[in-house]
Amino acid sequence: MSKGTVVLAYSGGLDTSCILVWLKEEGYDVITYLANIGQVEDFDAAKKKAESLGAKKVFIEDLRAEFVEEFIWPSVQASAIYEDRYLLGTSVARPCIARRQIQIARQEGAQYVSHGATGKGNDQIRFELTCYALYPEVQVTPWSMDANLMHISHAPADLYLMTKSPEDAPNSPDVLEIEFKKGVPIKVTHVKEGKSKDTPLDIFSYLNEMGGRHGVGRIDIVENRFIGMKSRGIYETPGGTILYHAHLDIETFTMDREVRRIKQGLGVKFAEMLYNGFWYSPECEFVRHCIDKSQESVEGKVQLSVFKGQVYILGRESPKSLYNEELVSMDVQGDYDPCDASGFIKINAVRLREHHRLQGEHHSKH
Amino acid sequence: MSKGTVVLAYSGGLDTSCILVWLKEEGYDVITYLANIGQVEDFDAAKKKAESLGAKKVFIEDLRAEFVEEFIWPSVQASAIYEDRYLLGTSVARPCIARRQIQIARQEGAQYVSHGATGKGNDQIRFELTCYALYPEVQVTPWSMDANLMHISHAPADLYLMTKSPEDAPNSPDVLEIEFKKGVPIKVTHVKEGKSKDTPLDIFSYLNEMGGRHGVGRIDIVENRFIGMKSRGIYETPGGTILYHAHLDIETFTMDREVRRIKQGLGVKFAEMLYNGFWYSPECEFVRHCIDKSQESVEGKVQLSVFKGQVYILGRESPKSLYNEELVSMDVQGDYDPCDASGFIKINAVRLREHHRLQGEHHSKH
Amino acid sequence: MSKGTVVLAYSGGLDTSCILVWLKEEGYDVITYLANIGQVEDFDAAKKKAESLGAKKVFIEDLRAEFVEEFIWPSVQASAIYEDRYLLGTSVARPCIARRQIQIARQEGAQYVSHGATGKGNDQIRFELTCYALYPEVQVTPWSMDANLMHISHAPADLYLMTKSPEDAPNSPDVLEIEFKKGVPIKVTHVKEGKSKDTPLDIFSYLNEMGGRHGVGRIDIVENRFIGMKSRGIYETPGGTILYHAHLDIETFTMDREVRRIKQGLGVKFAEMLYNGFWYSPECEFVRHCIDKSQESVEGKVQLSVFKGQVYILGRESPKSLYNEELVSMDVQGDYDPCDASGFIKINAVRLREHHRLQGEHHSKH
Amino acid sequence: MSKGTVVLAYSGGLDTSCILVWLKEEGYDVITYLANIGQVEDFDAAKKKAESLGAKKVFIEDLRAEFVEEFIWPSVQASAIYEDRYLLGTSVARPCIARRQIQIARQEGAQYVSHGATGKGNDQIRFELTCYALYPEVQVTPWSMDANLMHISHAPADLYLMTKSPEDAPNSPDVLEIEFKKGVPIKVTHVKEGKSKDTPLDIFSYLNEMGGRHGVGRIDIVENRFIGMKSRGIYETPGGTILYHAHLDIETFTMDREVRRIKQGLGVKFAEMLYNGFWYSPECEFVRHCIDKSQESVEGKVQLSVFKGQVYILGRESPKSLYNEELVSMDVQGDYDPCDASGFIKINAVRLREHHRLQGEHHSKH
Repeated sequence: MSKGTVVLAYSGGLDTSCILVWLKEEGYDVITYLANIGQVEDFDAAKKKAESLGAKKVFIEDLRAEFVEEFIWPSVQASAIYEDRYLLGTSVARPCIARRQIQIARQEGAQYVSHGATGKGNDQIRFELTCYALYPEVQVTPWSMDANLMHISHAPADLYLMTKSPEDAPNSPDVLEIEFKKGVPIKVTHVKEGKSKDTPLDIFSYLNEMGGRHGVGRIDIVENRFIGMKSRGIYETPGGTILYHAHLDIETFTMDREVRRIKQGLGVKFAEMLYNGFWYSPECEFVRHCIDKSQESVEGKVQLSVFKGQVYILGRESPKSLYNEELVSMDVQGDYDPCDASGFIKINAVRLREHHRLQGEHHSKH
Repeated sequence: MSKGTVVLAYSGGLDTSCILVWLKEEGYDVITYLANIGQVEDFDAAKKKAESLGAKKVFIEDLRAEFVEEFIWPSVQASAIYEDRYLLGTSVARPCIARRQIQIARQEGAQYVSHGATGKGNDQIRFELTCYALYPEVQVTPWSMDANLMHISHAPADLYLMTKSPEDAPNSPDVLEIEFKKGVPIKVTHVKEGKSKDTPLDIFSYLNEMGGRHGVGRIDIVENRFIGMKSRGIYETPGGTILYHAHLDIETFTMDREVRRIKQGLGVKFAEMLYNGFWYSPECEFVRHCIDKSQESVEGKVQLSVFKGQVYILGRESPKSLYNEELVSMDVQGDYDPCDASGFIKINAVRLREHHRLQGEHHSKH
Repeated sequence: MSKGTVVLAYSGGLDTSCILVWLKEEGYDVITYLANIGQVEDFDAAKKKAESLGAKKVFIEDLRAEFVEEFIWPSVQASAIYEDRYLLGTSVARPCIARRQIQIARQEGAQYVSHGATGKGNDQIRFELTCYALYPEVQVTPWSMDANLMHISHAPADLYLMTKSPEDAPNSPDVLEIEFKKGVPIKVTHVKEGKSKDTPLDIFSYLNEMGGRHGVGRIDIVENRFIGMKSRGIYETPGGTILYHAHLDIETFTMDREVRRIKQGLGVKFAEMLYNGFWYSPECEFVRHCIDKSQESVEGKVQLSVFKGQVYILGRESPKSLYNEELVSMDVQGDYDPCDASGFIKINAVRLREHHRLQGEHHSKH
Repeated sequence: MSKGTVVLAYSGGLDTSCILVWLKEEGYDVITYLANIGQVEDFDAAKKKAESLGAKKVFIEDLRAEFVEEFIWPSVQASAIYEDRYLLGTSVARPCIARRQIQIARQEGAQYVSHGATGKGNDQIRFELTCYALYPEVQVTPWSMDANLMHISHAPADLYLMTKSPEDAPNSPDVLEIEFKKGVPIKVTHVKEGKSKDTPLDIFSYLNEMGGRHGVGRIDIVENRFIGMKSRGIYETPGGTILYHAHLDIETFTMDREVRRIKQGLGVKFAEMLYNGFWYSPECEFVRHCIDKSQESVEGKVQLSVFKGQVYILGRESPKSLYNEELVSMDVQGDYDPCDASGFIKINAVRLREHHRLQGEHHSKH
């Protein structure tokens, strides 16, 4: 008799195939689930393999569009970056994948979920926190030591899959124009070729292609995991890197300075939540709401070039910019009175002068 | 009879020459002061011009070493960056220049200081706040409208002086190793050539040269000025950009995660103070002290390459790293019990499950 | 011929009467405006005085209800408190008063506004910033030195107007129950007397009466003004103090811990904006929106007593509380596994142990 | 043969006596340790009981002075308060107690420590994190279910031990003067009686006595535990409450506004660390250092009265105050030019006016 049904996040690889077999041996019915979030994968082969290993049902789900719109776009709005460098590409996929897995578990009446993420990594945490948050009664089946030890035999995968080396990248840049509305890209145009994309998935895929061609978005870092260890991470985020720079530019151009400072602090918090696996948490929902609100006037076009691993901002325009060329000009006074600047400075100096006065008194005393 | 003595920050250019003449016409004795902070300048010519225009005394001061050690190094420690992009090269020079000017004013018995920074810019604020903070009784002489209007006739200076265009930069990278101690560079070595520098000024100059050769550190941004306007800024910070990346890497490698989060917040505040002209303020002194304290174990070597406008981190090593390869390995259990991770996750999920439970209750009610 | 029309914020007192006369002498038409925000005032007498001094038109506006609903309630939601002590009673009145003044100026075609707030105070700033924010072309007429010097002759007003001294307060407490919805009070009930109030103005007035009777909400502080000076302030905020405590209690009871931490930081920022006069600013609008969002589930009843200057929370209840008595009990295990706590602690200790290990190594080396 | 030696934090009560017996039955040698941190306790009786139950050694340690100086004083400097209300009296004791226990364990060659804190509480976490941080190889012995279930039979202890009910408190206040240096109290004087105390332990004990007599420092709250549950806490902190208010007053009086804002943020973080058990962590050491630095000029005397549960600040004086009565007076202009205030306001309004202009344009367009 079956111990119950497990929905297993299945990759088709060795680790999760071992888990599948082991779960069946332990007496569970196993449903496998494989999410397509844009990775290069032979989905048919994975399906056949799962069936041949005894999966009761096999789900292959195309989550690419919802991944871009519901998970990547809010991260772009937030300028989400962990420890000043990591654009959270892996982190942001996890809640998207686990959400669908939970939907399948509920729909199939499964009380268990399982996955192949290992015990010291962030992905285990991200996966399991999402599961508990969305399906509090769910049980996560323990992963087998043996299955995990298989890990040892893996050759490290080729490090970079999406990006060319900057040194091998083309010797002339591609120039792109990205149009934003409410802080998310609504169109990207290749300026010379005139080609453009305007659905979220197409935009993001095209930016991945362009960034990849020019070697954009590679990093080799040591990061701090949620569980308190430092670990080395090598990441490539070509499209995400282009969007990070373009969004930052149009945001600074259109958003009030003080709103942006507050939003910047919220973005740092958002990145930590995302990294640590708290996408589905009251605080992350709250922060996403606030950040989304801040983006209302983040609208306009950014021109940029990608070249030899780098993104260069060339210019920007917006109907909602607070940038007032006339006001800012040194040569036109307009209704700006230089005398006001002196007053502004003197009042700001009141505190500094008092501080000096007080220190002086003490210095003369002692 | 003289109205008193003015110490004028003099560049040798048209604007400040006009101010010099105007101040004399107004009845002041004028002492000119020109700081060498590493800019390309004909100091002798400036001296002669000042004398020929009637300066009572002429000071040409080489501040390069103290500029690097006392102002740039603390900014490197802070990872000081304004609005996520601007490395504050101009901002950090201002308090250094004004400090010496105030010393000269005190020593020469001058009650007045003057400068050529215009009325809508940040530099006026930075200059004057420093003066008031260090010499509360000083008076800043009003700058003449007419002198300022001369500005119009200026052709815009060649935009980039220090950096090559990335497109014209060499086709092969230079690889450098920078050694840090207490968060500041103590040595830079060109890995292939074996050449190295080890005084602050030599290190910084060499990084400027290397970065400049490879087109590192150019930005074209719209920024928010202290006075509330947005304005466009085009900056090049070759050496500062290399140091920013190298320091960030060694810091993340050696500093505890939670200390770094607090330090990161202090660094954001530091950057705002610096941008707004508050280097000499109680809060900036306090923050510099705290940041300096955080750097005690930021020590080690970073290898990096500079190429086509970009800095690539290649690796790092440190005697003080918290990075523990054995602990972090997926394959070695050591004293890390996978069961602990489950407990950690479940406790972190308590709050999320309660939240879900509560929302569920409400959803079922309404 | 008239120089134009000025809308003067007129109190009926000596200062603003002098300004009225002086403005007329300077050649302006003067419209006086007096806001009723709940202060004790003879509005009829003020009207007659303004007319007798030559005001062209006299506005007496009852703003009490909108003051409570649109300005005090958001401050209650924010737990707005400046420098940990001051509940911002004066600050929050200023944008409410100035908003109506600007409406009158626009409606009457006046290009000028004026007020009696003095040059070193916060109120001048709050008033003028609101005016510029809502009517950018408006001009603030300069206040006369002479009028201001009249100030000298004032006897200091009786310090406390709203509250009894705690020592003279009744020897037995009054017990109140306040009901909140979305973070604002919707009903207050006197538990013993059964009396209750349920409109914003009635609730706030009643809490002022109850708090005043028991000497609640007096403070004598030194605060930091926006212009950088420290100054002594003596304030009484009886109703506001009761609401601060009651709201804090129901908020902590119903809001997720992490949401509350973020909201707490926003509340500190909100208090600074309010104190400095930035109610009508993009950042304050943004923060009010976020705080309002955080209050969605802040709902329930708080029982409290007021006695001898103090507010004591007696209990609370809520349909939306995250407080789960069963879960929290030490004696019932439920689905809480003590083993999880050990895992949670051990993972949290990973970082601390590594830190100790590293320090130990260094200690042994050096 | 013994399994090894356990140092047990022993209270003399039923729970830890059961643990003692159980540990012996399990085959451990047990050393009991009881810290005197000022609680009312029959230490002799506890010693005898431990011996009679088979403890191999019994340590009774008077930690009162170090508790006040090394743990309470830094918390006073930090204005440490959790979730705006809880003064962390219990939290701050834990690292002090556990530190000595670890010293004993090392000195006695014990590899194990044990305690009676239960599985859902914060105290378990605080205790164990301290142990792991100071003695990474230590093992915490599992607490027995059975021992814990004994808990049920406990009658709840009398809620308030240190404070009188405010209603029963004296009808006239006591007036105290507290003198601070570097942010910690160095002397307390009863103004009428002339009595004074000047060692840390005496000062704190006397303030506990005075506060207790007047019913100061009782709270009944729901708080958020580290493990994510909300729980009700009833606390009394008489001396700590007096110090919190007095320190806040002298700090605001003597500290620069902007330094204080940064310090306030650090204090909030410190309180969370303390609550969660991270006293011995790199981040808490860092923050304590920074806060201590901020207190350099927090010096002077505060007069206050305690009465019916409340602390009233009556006045303050300091040789280091930034409060400048002359500067702040409305009536003396000194070198404060009212025109500067206008300039200050207008520059601050630049951003607000631009914002309004932009919104107006959009409103007219759409």
